Amino acid sequence: MKPWESGIRKVTPYIPGEQPRISDIIKLNTNENPYPPSPAVEKVISGYPTETLRLYPDPACQVLVDAIAEYYGIGRDCVFVGIGSDDVLALSFLTFFNQELPILFPDITYSFYDVWAELYRIPFRRIPLDEGFAWHKEDYRIPNGGIVLANPNAPTGLYANLNDIEDVLSHNPDSIVIIDEAYIDFGGTSALPLLKKYDNLLIVQTFSKSRSLAGMRIGYAMGNPLLIRYLNDVKYSFNSYTMNRVTLEAGAAAIKDRDYFVQNCQNIIHTREESKKRLARLGFSFPDSMTNFIFASHEHIDAEELFTALKEHGIFVRHFGADRIKNYLRITIGLPQQMDTLFDFLASYIEKHA
Amino acid sequence: MKPWESGIRKVTPYIPGEQPRISDIIKLNTNENPYPPSPAVEKVISGYPTETLRLYPDPACQVLVDAIAEYYGIGRDCVFVGIGSDDVLALSFLTFFNQELPILFPDITYSFYDVWAELYRIPFRRIPLDEGFAWHKEDYRIPNGGIVLANPNAPTGLYANLNDIEDVLSHNPDSIVIIDEAYIDFGGTSALPLLKKYDNLLIVQTFSKSRSLAGMRIGYAMGNPLLIRYLNDVKYSFNSYTMNRVTLEAGAAAIKDRDYFVQNCQNIIHTREESKKRLARLGFSFPDSMTNFIFASHEHIDAEELFTALKEHGIFVRHFGADRIKNYLRITIGLPQQMDTLFDFLASYIEKHA
Repeated sequence: MKPWESGIRKVTPYIPGEQPRISDIIKLNTNENPYPPSPAVEKVISGYPTETLRLYPDPACQVLVDAIAEYYGIGRDCVFVGIGSDDVLALSFLTFFNQELPILFPDITYSFYDVWAELYRIPFRRIPLDEGFAWHKEDYRIPNGGIVLANPNAPTGLYANLNDIEDVLSHNPDSIVIIDEAYIDFGGTSALPLLKKYDNLLIVQTFSKSRSLAGMRIGYAMGNPLLIRYLNDVKYSFNSYTMNRVTLEAGAAAIKDRDYFVQNCQNIIHTREESKKRLARLGFSFPDSMTNFIFASHEHIDAEELFTALKEHGIFVRHFGADRIKNYLRITIGLPQQMDTLFDFLASYIEKHA
Repeated sequence: MKPWESGIRKVTPYIPGEQPRISDIIKLNTNENPYPPSPAVEKVISGYPTETLRLYPDPACQVLVDAIAEYYGIGRDCVFVGIGSDDVLALSFLTFFNQELPILFPDITYSFYDVWAELYRIPFRRIPLDEGFAWHKEDYRIPNGGIVLANPNAPTGLYANLNDIEDVLSHNPDSIVIIDEAYIDFGGTSALPLLKKYDNLLIVQTFSKSRSLAGMRIGYAMGNPLLIRYLNDVKYSFNSYTMNRVTLEAGAAAIKDRDYFVQNCQNIIHTREESKKRLARLGFSFPDSMTNFIFASHEHIDAEELFTALKEHGIFVRHFGADRIKNYLRITIGLPQQMDTLFDFLASYIEKHA
């Protein structure tokens, strides 16, 4: 070991889904949107006045904050933006979770939560989901330093209704409750209306899924102005200029195009519901997804073997190693023709192996 | 106080230089480059295939990492990139400074260093610069948990020669030494050749100054592959996809255009040297800047009053409140015609007030 190595923060990094660079694969592994972003984004980028890039961006990100606030009908002081929802969530962990008590989140959920907790040395406790991957509000009535719930949850796809979310909020007035709504636009109802009633609620969303802008890195939080101010204070003490000029303008243009967004989500929901029927016919079981992916398992098929077979066939899906979910595959909803190719392969694979 | 407020991380945020939105001002307050970025950047952005933005960017940022590595003639495993050098530096503090011993940096230097140390609860000690704002290598021979030196230093503009940097490296084999070279391209010599000899050296640079891309947010670190791997591990545990697709391509295009870069820096150096002569003629004194700004003081003029007068005249410069430097103004080198306007104003102001 080098003499200077002892003082280095050593972490087990999160391993993101593969980003293969070959272009003729079917990529259903990182929950990207199969449709391009709004044409308004192309207009902004192709005409961007690059001479202005010599100047720092607006540290308050006002053009994007205002567009999001207007879209959701909330105050501009209720919105915080960052480099994807990962940035917003990580900064929220750093800002809001400074208690001795552990923060709570489900045992099966977005795999970054425990990574951030470990990075920032935040004590945490994983609350087991039930057999069907549902969480129960009664489990969140124990002393805690904060709560994080993805709704719909990932990688299960399950949506919890707002009564359950409200129960958690009302039983934990001393804790910040983060609802991670990365997938809310594919059929769920946002906790947004609860913001008026609960000042301990922080809702986090992203442009990476429903707005087809994973490559642009935009996430945001919505909460009462005091929470947003605390987030901004920490952000300004870390990096004043996080969002670049092009991103701010492209993001604002994307969120203003409501019609395109609604149609895009409807297309994906339609393909998802068709895919559920086809998966069921092939003998797969899965939680009833309200997201742009389906988390599926087959009684007679080994998920990891199927994962590898799919990959060899140029179809990338996601497999997680954790014990409770190791016989599941998370399949992103792609274009209808991509799903046809997937199902052709699955049908023939199952015929041979089941 | 709200019941959930006690566990919130409260910080004194860094206050960045003003980013006024009016367009007819002369902006010499945040050390931006007065010239636009390379034409290659415009080409990349205006032709960017926006349909690919639905996909996540490459988490390894290879296209940009490779371009930087090639430019400097080092291995691709020696380069780390981030959202401006602030992101790279903050992440380096988090990664490398986990000792009980205080990290060391000068009392007058980039004002983010103590903000990051406080944010991450890293003990630190400020080492006073001498009367002429120089630091002395002998002062850095005390037990420490790491060292951070900006070279040239900000806001003084003073450059330290590589022998002094090497002395600090060789006397501190147990510490990571970060050399922040945000302004190195305006006449200084980078510590890059020392990388071969010292594995405890991390050099941080930025596209925000010499490459006219403050609005794009690109910074980078260069160090031995082990340091870079530790940085990447922490980055991946925070946010896998920090740099967006457009930024990666635009940055790679910018760094490949060596001729444009060299000419751009030479223009600014020329204007700076002219500006030094003009400031001296008006009775200002200043450290001999090797940056794109001059840190100037006048025996008979109150800096804060001059700051306000300049602002009222539409000329923005930077004033810092800290005791030792409160009679100085940091003036960014602008276009020649902007400097003419500045000096016309200064001449008439001094005639009236000195």
